[in-house]
Formats: sequence, structure tokens, C-alpha cells
Amino acid sequence: MNTQPIGLFDSGVGGLTIMRELAAQLPNEHLIYLGDTARLPYGNKSPEAILRFAIDNSAFLLEQNIKLLIISCHTASSHAFHALKDSLPIPVLGVTEPGVQSLLRATRTKRVAVLGTAATIASGIYQSLIKLQDPNTQIFAISCPLFVPLVEEGLQDHQAAKLIAEHYLSSLRSQNIDAVLLACTHYPLLRATIQEVLGPSIQLVEPASSCAIQAKQLLTSLNLLNEVNRSPKYRFFASDDPEKFQHLAKIFFPHPIPHVFLRKLPL
Amino acid sequence: MNTQPIGLFDSGVGGLTIMRELAAQLPNEHLIYLGDTARLPYGNKSPEAILRFAIDNSAFLLEQNIKLLIISCHTASSHAFHALKDSLPIPVLGVTEPGVQSLLRATRTKRVAVLGTAATIASGIYQSLIKLQDPNTQIFAISCPLFVPLVEEGLQDHQAAKLIAEHYLSSLRSQNIDAVLLACTHYPLLRATIQEVLGPSIQLVEPASSCAIQAKQLLTSLNLLNEVNRSPKYRFFASDDPEKFQHLAKIFFPHPIPHVFLRKLPL
Repeated sequence: MNTQPIGLFDSGVGGLTIMRELAAQLPNEHLIYLGDTARLPYGNKSPEAILRFAIDNSAFLLEQNIKLLIISCHTASSHAFHALKDSLPIPVLGVTEPGVQSLLRATRTKRVAVLGTAATIASGIYQSLIKLQDPNTQIFAISCPLFVPLVEEGLQDHQAAKLIAEHYLSSLRSQNIDAVLLACTHYPLLRATIQEVLGPSIQLVEPASSCAIQAKQLLTSLNLLNEVNRSPKYRFFASDDPEKFQHLAKIFFPHPIPHVFLRKLPL
Repeated sequence: MNTQPIGLFDSGVGGLTIMRELAAQLPNEHLIYLGDTARLPYGNKSPEAILRFAIDNSAFLLEQNIKLLIISCHTASSHAFHALKDSLPIPVLGVTEPGVQSLLRATRTKRVAVLGTAATIASGIYQSLIKLQDPNTQIFAISCPLFVPLVEEGLQDHQAAKLIAEHYLSSLRSQNIDAVLLACTHYPLLRATIQEVLGPSIQLVEPASSCAIQAKQLLTSLNLLNEVNRSPKYRFFASDDPEKFQHLAKIFFPHPIPHVFLRKLPL
């Protein structure tokens, strides 16, 4: 039994899809979300920069006295999960492992694809994790750098989005895959477009639900669940432009967001 | 007569179009370029964040003993030019004023458009400067947030780029404009696409040449030209992933780039 909050961070608002699932599956828990909007996007930055940003974001959330850290960004999970897990004094979860589990549960043909940012795909972490869990799985890993800006422009259903999805994904159609992991929190908003390009028989997989289940199991096993609280507090921080964050966040998070605090970066 | 270098900064590689023009028009001058790749893009950040980044970049260049600072990024020029001009101990130039001068020289109908990032257009600085110089000019200011990522993905000539340009610019066709300022250093790479959407009679204007002329005039008037040097040194810094910077930079800068140094940010 523990009433401390759970902390989450992402480069922007996308990680709120994880927070939404946490709020649904752990309705007693206080949640604190940090969107690192001053330094977004992470997907085209170097491994060193992403690791530095992740360490800094975690330090801020630790100051908020969290009991569990969830790295709600695939790029940061890919590059910083092990470093944070090994160095932080609290348990740490990422979205990478839940994503891989969901993907392997979904495939029958053992031929799958992973879509992510340039940094996520270049990290090779999804490829390694899948091979580790099932060496016979054939993996097609594709970076789709324009998907995030398309979603942020609200053009996810525009004909241009379809052409760009064709550009990235048309080569997959001849590969006999049956499941695709959307390994970036923005990509679910392009679900209809991606499905149209890949065809209706392909299953599109997201890690949010699986990640929340894992968080619940972990807190239960460590006896850290908040079992009595009936009015959870949701607090939001952004490292730049809290008003814009608040505005965009409504697309991703169904609960009220009365205020977003500025988390001022050291520089 | 002064042999100190000229300093330039941009969020990424785009400002090298200004550096290229400086190298052509001031072939004796040493030049130092800083690309703030750890914090790019600037175009979707807040005025406060952009100002902080600009101040930090300038402080770094001042440590390199520069004699003139050129803000080679339209977003940073729009938000930080006056603050830097008022506070730095050396002369400062931006790309905003040279851009406006070029635009007003190009128009006959006095109906013009300015294309830039969300932050540049929201600053209203181009609109004010144009009105100040010619109150009768009719201005259409349009932000085009997807142009930068399209160029960075190398898709500037893809059909999707044309559809996105149509999305942003088609409303201009009925406005009887005759000149358009490309108020972002990435946009000249979309010149063919923009021209195709707007039609052949529209003149597309960039500030690079005008900015270099202004730099030369300023250095001459202050007696700061380097008049004897015959082998200028060009030095490059990036705040993230110097190798990627070096690779991309070749699109924008025609001289050899033997090395790019990492400028490590305080965080």
C-alpha cells in the first residue's frame, strides 16, 4: 500500500495514450506526466542526447516523489530503459517490452513489422528483443520520420499522409506479414491510413494496454498499489509552452486537464 | 581591418545557405557556424524558449571571439534579434530585414506573401516590418510546418510535398500576389514545388544574398573587414550528432567540411 504518484514522461503529448490506459486500469493511482516539449522531437536526435534528456526528465519526476517511472516514449525507452532501470532507486517500466509482447501474441505467421522513429529503429532494440523472445520471427523494421509531424499538423487523414504511408510501407505488402507494431505514441492516430495502405488483414498493435497491465502487476507484486484513494490527482508538466500542450493533450487524454505547469529546463 | 571571425547560428543546417553567400561575397573572412541540432526545430517552440536558445547560442559564439553575429535562422531572427542587438557587445544582423527588403524590391502589385514556420508567422515580425516600410502593401502570412520535415526527409519533389504545398498555398492563387518571401532557410529546397503550386509568374524571394551584402556594408562602415587574409577558415559546431550535421550540410554548403565539432549543451 503506497499513495505516492506514478511518473511518466514523453517528448510531447503522445505518451498520454499510456497515461489514459493507466488511468483506466489503475483508477486509484495519482499520476504525474512530463512532456519535454522544449526538446521534442526525440526521434531524430542522437542516442547520447536522448539518454541525457531521459536522465534529466527522470530526475525531475523523482523530485516529485514518484514510486514508479514509466518511460512513455518509444524513442526514450529504446535508448534509456536499461540505464534508468540500473541507476534509479525506484522501479522503471518502458513501452518497448510490452510492445514486443503484444506483437508476438498477435502474429501467427511469425512475420512482423515494427514502425518507429529514425532513432527507435536505428537503436535495434525491437529487433533484438523480438529475436530474443522468438528467434524464428522474421522482422521488418521501418522508420517513418514524417508520421509525427503529419499527426501534429492534424493531416493524418489527408491524401498526403496516404502517399507518405505508401512511400514508407508499400514494400511490406509483398512480405506476408500479419502483425505490425506501432512503436511510436503518435502512430495510432494514423491507424486508418496505415491500415488502408497495408490492407485489412494486418493486425496493428499498440503497447498502451499491455504496458498498463504490466504496471499493475509490478505494483501489486511490490505491494505498492494505492488501494484506498478514490479521487486520483493528475498533474501535468511541459518544458515549453504549457498552453499548447494543454490544447494538444485533449486529443490524447479523456479526463479534464485543468492546468499544465511549466517545468523550466536548466537552460 | 580585423581578422576575427564572423559567427552564425541556426537550429540546424539551413542557415548554411547564408554562410554560402557570405563565403562568396566576403571571401577573406573566417566564419564559424553553430547548428543547434539538439534543440531543433525552433519553428514549433514558444517565444521564450526560442529566445533562451538564441541567447545561449550567441554566448557560445562570443566565446569564439567573433566580430559580427548573424542570426541565420528566420525563427530565431523573428524572436531574438532586438534582444541580442541590444545586449551583445558586437554588431548583430538577422535575416528578417534583408528578407523584407528583397521582397519589397520584387513586388510590383504591392500584394505579397510570407511563408515561414509557425513561430515565425505567429511573431508577426514580417507583417510589422513590411507595414512599417510600405503601409500600402497587402500581406498574406502563411505558416507551413511540414515543409521543414519534408525537406529533411528528402521528399521535397515527392507528390506528397506537392499536395501539402497545395494544402498550405492554394488559397493564395486568387489573391493577385506577385512576390513570395521564403522566410525559412529550408524552403528554397522546395522552390520548384512551391513555384508549381503558385504558378510561374510569382517571384520567389530569399534573403541570403541581401543578408551577405548587408554584412559587407556593415563591416566596411565599421572598418572591420579582413582585407589581407587569403585562406579563410570555416569552422562548424553542432549541439547534437556532428556526423549527421556534416552529412546534411553538404546539401547546403559547397565548400569542404572536414570536421564538425560537438558543442555540448549545459544539459
